[in-house]
Amino acid sequence: MRLLYSPTSPYVRKVMASAIHLGLADRIICVAGHPSPVKPDPAVSDVNPLGKVPAATLDDGTVLLGSRTICEWLAATGADPAFLPAGGAPRWAVLELHDLADGILDAALLARYESAVRPEALRWADWHSGQLGKIDAALSRLNALADRLAGPVTLGSITTGCALGYLDFRFADHSWRAANPRLAAWWAEFGETAPMAQTRPA
Amino acid sequence: MRLLYSPTSPYVRKVMASAIHLGLADRIICVAGHPSPVKPDPAVSDVNPLGKVPAATLDDGTVLLGSRTICEWLAATGADPAFLPAGGAPRWAVLELHDLADGILDAALLARYESAVRPEALRWADWHSGQLGKIDAALSRLNALADRLAGPVTLGSITTGCALGYLDFRFADHSWRAANPRLAAWWAEFGETAPMAQTRPA
Repeated sequence: MRLLYSPTSPYVRKVMASAIHLGLADRIICVAGHPSPVKPDPAVSDVNPLGKVPAATLDDGTVLLGSRTICEWLAATGADPAFLPAGGAPRWAVLELHDLADGILDAALLARYESAVRPEALRWADWHSGQLGKIDAALSRLNALADRLAGPVTLGSITTGCALGYLDFRFADHSWRAANPRLAAWWAEFGETAPMAQTRPA
Repeated sequence: MRLLYSPTSPYVRKVMASAIHLGLADRIICVAGHPSPVKPDPAVSDVNPLGKVPAATLDDGTVLLGSRTICEWLAATGADPAFLPAGGAPRWAVLELHDLADGILDAALLARYESAVRPEALRWADWHSGQLGKIDAALSRLNALADRLAGPVTLGSITTGCALGYLDFRFADHSWRAANPRLAAWWAEFGETAPMAQTRPA
C-alpha cells in the first residue's frame, strides 16, 4: 500500500497504529503530502481529489480514501477479527467508539483551523466554542464507555487514543482529565502500548 | 429504528434513500432534531454528543452515529448484497464512490456554514473557494467513474445522488454539469428513481 500521509495528522496516526496492531506496518510505503484546506497539493489531490490525507493506493490500482476505509482494508487483511468485527452487535459497539472519537477529531481539526489557520480578524468565537462543546460532550460519553475501551484492542480504542493524543498535542490547555477520570486512567495505560507509543506526534 | 433527522440534511437523505432502496423504510421512526454547529439541541446531543444528524437508536439500545454507520446497519439488515458488498474489490469500489460523494457533502456543508451561517464580517473567501475546489475535483473524479455509478444501486450511487442533489439545492449557481457531462447524464436518470425522487429536499 502506498499511503499519502502527513506527520502530524491524527487520521494518519489511526491508520499507522491500526497497521502496527495488526502486524501490517511493513505493507505500507509512506509518501509525504501537504494537505491544506485552502491550497491544494497536487501530490495529494492526484490520489484524493478531496485534498485530504490519509489516502492509499494498492498495487492493483484500488483506491482507498480516508482513514475509515483504509482501516477497514487493514482489518480485512489482518488476522484479528476482534479489531473490527464483521457484523452484529460487536461491530456496532466498536463503531460507536470509532464514530465518537472520529467526531472529536473532526471537531478538533475545525477548531484548530479556526484558531491557527484562519486570519485572526475573521475568527468567530462561537464556532470555536461550539466545536469544543462537541468535543467535551463526546469525551463524557467515551468516559461512560470506558469498560468497553478496556476490552480487546479495536478500531474504536485506537481511534479514541488518536483523539486523546491529538487533544494533548494541539489543545494542551483544554483540560479534559478531571471531568473524565475513567477515560484518563484508560489512556494513561493505553497510550504506552506499541501502536500508540510508536506513532506519537512530535 | 428511531432516527434523529432534519428535513434538509443530505446525510439524512442518504439514510432514507438507502432504506427505501432496501425496502426498510417502514422500520424507521423519524424524530425531529435541530442540529447546529454553534448551538446544541438537547434532542440531538442526548443521542449523539457530537450534535449531528442522522443518529439512530435501536430497540435493544444499540446506538448508530452518522450516516455511514446507519447505512451499514441497513445494508446488513436488508437483502441486497450488491448495495454494500461484504468484502474484496467490490466493496472498495463502492466505498470509493461513497467516500468521494461524502467528501463533497462535507465540503459543501463547510462552504454553506461559511456563506450562510457565519457572520458576514468574519467570512474568509479562501476557505469558501478552497471547499468549492475540493467539490469540483471530486465531481471530476466521479465523472470519470460514471460507468461504475451506472451499475447496480449501491451506497456509492445513492451517496453520489445525495451530493449532486445537495449541490442543486444549496449551490444552484455553481454549475457543474457542463464540465461533467457523463455524471450529469447519469444523475438526470438516477434522480428520478424512487429512492431519490421520494427524498427530494423541499
